[in-house]
Amino acid sequence: MNTAALDAGKSSAGQFGGPMAGPIDQLRAIGREFHARNWSLGTSSNYSVVLSQEPLELLITASGKDKSALGPDDFVRVDAAGGVIDGSGRKSSAETLLHCLIARLVPALGGAAVGAVLHTHSVWATLLSGADLPRGSLRIEGYEMLKGLEGIGTHETAEEVPIFANSQNMTELSHRIRDRLSAADWSNLSRPPCHGFLLSKHGLYTWGRDLAEARRHVEIHEFLFEAVARSRSLSGPAAAGAPQPAQPRRQPQQ
Amino acid sequence: MNTAALDAGKSSAGQFGGPMAGPIDQLRAIGREFHARNWSLGTSSNYSVVLSQEPLELLITASGKDKSALGPDDFVRVDAAGGVIDGSGRKSSAETLLHCLIARLVPALGGAAVGAVLHTHSVWATLLSGADLPRGSLRIEGYEMLKGLEGIGTHETAEEVPIFANSQNMTELSHRIRDRLSAADWSNLSRPPCHGFLLSKHGLYTWGRDLAEARRHVEIHEFLFEAVARSRSLSGPAAAGAPQPAQPRRQPQQ
Amino acid sequence: MNTAALDAGKSSAGQFGGPMAGPIDQLRAIGREFHARNWSLGTSSNYSVVLSQEPLELLITASGKDKSALGPDDFVRVDAAGGVIDGSGRKSSAETLLHCLIARLVPALGGAAVGAVLHTHSVWATLLSGADLPRGSLRIEGYEMLKGLEGIGTHETAEEVPIFANSQNMTELSHRIRDRLSAADWSNLSRPPCHGFLLSKHGLYTWGRDLAEARRHVEIHEFLFEAVARSRSLSGPAAAGAPQPAQPRRQPQQ
Amino acid sequence: MNTAALDAGKSSAGQFGGPMAGPIDQLRAIGREFHARNWSLGTSSNYSVVLSQEPLELLITASGKDKSALGPDDFVRVDAAGGVIDGSGRKSSAETLLHCLIARLVPALGGAAVGAVLHTHSVWATLLSGADLPRGSLRIEGYEMLKGLEGIGTHETAEEVPIFANSQNMTELSHRIRDRLSAADWSNLSRPPCHGFLLSKHGLYTWGRDLAEARRHVEIHEFLFEAVARSRSLSGPAAAGAPQPAQPRRQPQQ
Repeated sequence: MNTAALDAGKSSAGQFGGPMAGPIDQLRAIGREFHARNWSLGTSSNYSVVLSQEPLELLITASGKDKSALGPDDFVRVDAAGGVIDGSGRKSSAETLLHCLIARLVPALGGAAVGAVLHTHSVWATLLSGADLPRGSLRIEGYEMLKGLEGIGTHETAEEVPIFANSQNMTELSHRIRDRLSAADWSNLSRPPCHGFLLSKHGLYTWGRDLAEARRHVEIHEFLFEAVARSRSLSGPAAAGAPQPAQPRRQPQQ
Repeated sequence: MNTAALDAGKSSAGQFGGPMAGPIDQLRAIGREFHARNWSLGTSSNYSVVLSQEPLELLITASGKDKSALGPDDFVRVDAAGGVIDGSGRKSSAETLLHCLIARLVPALGGAAVGAVLHTHSVWATLLSGADLPRGSLRIEGYEMLKGLEGIGTHETAEEVPIFANSQNMTELSHRIRDRLSAADWSNLSRPPCHGFLLSKHGLYTWGRDLAEARRHVEIHEFLFEAVARSRSLSGPAAAGAPQPAQPRRQPQQ
Repeated sequence: MNTAALDAGKSSAGQFGGPMAGPIDQLRAIGREFHARNWSLGTSSNYSVVLSQEPLELLITASGKDKSALGPDDFVRVDAAGGVIDGSGRKSSAETLLHCLIARLVPALGGAAVGAVLHTHSVWATLLSGADLPRGSLRIEGYEMLKGLEGIGTHETAEEVPIFANSQNMTELSHRIRDRLSAADWSNLSRPPCHGFLLSKHGLYTWGRDLAEARRHVEIHEFLFEAVARSRSLSGPAAAGAPQPAQPRRQPQQ
Repeated sequence: MNTAALDAGKSSAGQFGGPMAGPIDQLRAIGREFHARNWSLGTSSNYSVVLSQEPLELLITASGKDKSALGPDDFVRVDAAGGVIDGSGRKSSAETLLHCLIARLVPALGGAAVGAVLHTHSVWATLLSGADLPRGSLRIEGYEMLKGLEGIGTHETAEEVPIFANSQNMTELSHRIRDRLSAADWSNLSRPPCHGFLLSKHGLYTWGRDLAEARRHVEIHEFLFEAVARSRSLSGPAAAGAPQPAQPRRQPQQ
């Protein structure tokens, strides 16, 4: 057990920390950060970077690794079918198929090129994906933070984050995801129909043109999940009898 | 993507960390701290320091930057109209106008000189600003922590934090803010009518005579937002049947 | 008081931080991490590593130590009866008997060998163990994160975490735990009937084949405790009138 | 503004970090830790160490200092009346009188010697002290973590944390505290009637024989405040229809 990582310490790799850090070091840093935020506890989660689109090749976290302490050997290179192609004999995560699906499908449907896919397990994502599964998607409306999702330029909008019932059958699950994403409307070239999706009582998948954008998309989705969940139990200001503000004010615009 | 910052690491600038750190290094440190506290996730937020009052010149975060990893080049100098004047070609945030407005208007109305303006996006600010928009302001009353706002010397008071409906039209929004702040009572030279304001389902704007005071104002507002929000769902002690304290006690003063 | 630890600093032991860190350094790192996560505040908690199965010998945290600042001398070696055998004169925790019980009993019942036992005090564990004590166990069902518990390969399952009424009589308590664990069904060699248990209004005991697995089990249990507790007060999506998702969608599989 | 502290960085003082760190460095470390935990935001809080009992002399944080960045000069030495006696001209906090009162009174009433007094402002302390002020004290019962308070050896007990209505008149407030503490029962030499007290909608005062014990008392009180507050809105397990645990179990002891 690498104790250095337990202190949210720095990687010992020489490249770590510099602005020229390669994908492995960037993913190791993502792991430390997300684990510290409780988004990747207990060896959950997986992260990938697209090394090549044609043929499709991903660098992805190996199966069952402590994300707070990813070492240089904790990654595998996989092909479009999720098969490990770096001769390491290491096992990639069962969910590799979902990373490959996203990396190939989103651009094929008219979305932007996918440079990275991030899958996280936060408590808020876990809860909302379970609560709203019957509805089929989680509606997030009216928040300024929606503008952190690529192509959204106003708060006066709603994002419907698709929710899929969780499954251990990755083939079956990837088909359902493929079918539903394919049926969505990708005709608006600057704004995709979604920037991620949820697996019920499981977590979030999101992506971006590069790892920085994918990470931003995780942060935005997770912030919004917490806001939506907490808003469901927040009361308004004190009831009748609460003092009115003393200063005259203009009628607020709605 | 600068991985060093992902570990809440230190800036590589030589000046960083010393008590003589200039405004750029101070703002970079603010970014790391606020991002770690979930107040500046996903490239949200913007921070400025007033370099000069006449003519007005601000140093402000450039648009769309990861606040956990602000580099020395992620800032622009702007004039009173929010125009970039440092020849960098970098884009300042759309919300620069609000920083300029605050920096000019607050002293003009009789408030203290403004040395820095900080805009943050916390979940509690986002939720309360949405819930209390119909009322027009968020009332915070009776808390000792109110004394962290400049000019407040007692808990026996209430602060009404103005809430404005959010807008993407910065000109229109800045006019509404200007009109409402101008209509408030600034005649008490030691205590302004507010120390910040909220944009609904968006976040907090606050300021101070220098960056340290502005940062303190962020911390105080954010603490109070959490206290107010949580208080709306906290019950009192166990109902009838709860044991009375065993020791005799004086009647508590209210 | 060791101030270095207060800053979540690094241990001063030479071995600290390397992948070859021995059990003492690993347990010191666990203490810093768990204390930072609020799972081991106020000298609570205790951690052990099994040094030898026959005869049973454990390395365990000494009594009453600040877990954020465990020093090399803050550990004792104990035998199967919990007696200190390293001639140090230091006192082991009263709860040492529970570590010894788990280390001996779980393999004897058919579970995997126990290499480490971790006991933590989180708010969520404290609350749920109190709330569900009448039921006798805490039911956790349907979460993907259950797969972080050794031997669980699907979310379509439920884990019943036994809850024992707390007691200061360690002998009596260990007998109750022994009797109840012995009565459980250990016949599934790949999946034990539980991976930990709760003491009411006290905390979690969990274990693993080594310290890395025990730590993973703490993280998984604590994540699930928070998810279960928060789910008990989370409402579903907005009631009647909530807009339906705009895009046609397949019927979600349940 | 000292940017180093904004990164929860280390002090630049030579002594910092070693086990021989003196009281100033220990209090600076406390400040960084408590600020990071949201217990000392916005220059709130004050910490003291008793340098001498006869005559009473305290080392206490100077007024209005950022606790995340306390420097070596941010402390003053005061006498029993709270007057600054180190010729520095610095101002001590208005609440210094309460530190002096506790340091003198608790031992005089039969409690243990006081080596340090810590005053913190957490959201949970703020809320519970307001909610339970009518009752006069906050009752905390049945939690194992109560054993972290000196002299408490069992969970089968209740601690009544006195709550005083907040006031800006320190003389009046200190008299109320003195009168109420003096009227309590200090006859049990190993267990005092309280280990701290709350000021309504303000925060916690606690103390210890040395700084380590005072810090432990802060952690224990703050943990218990969160547990009590959250327990007031936590429901029990799923209602009628919830599956019963599958394994036979002994009747749990209450």
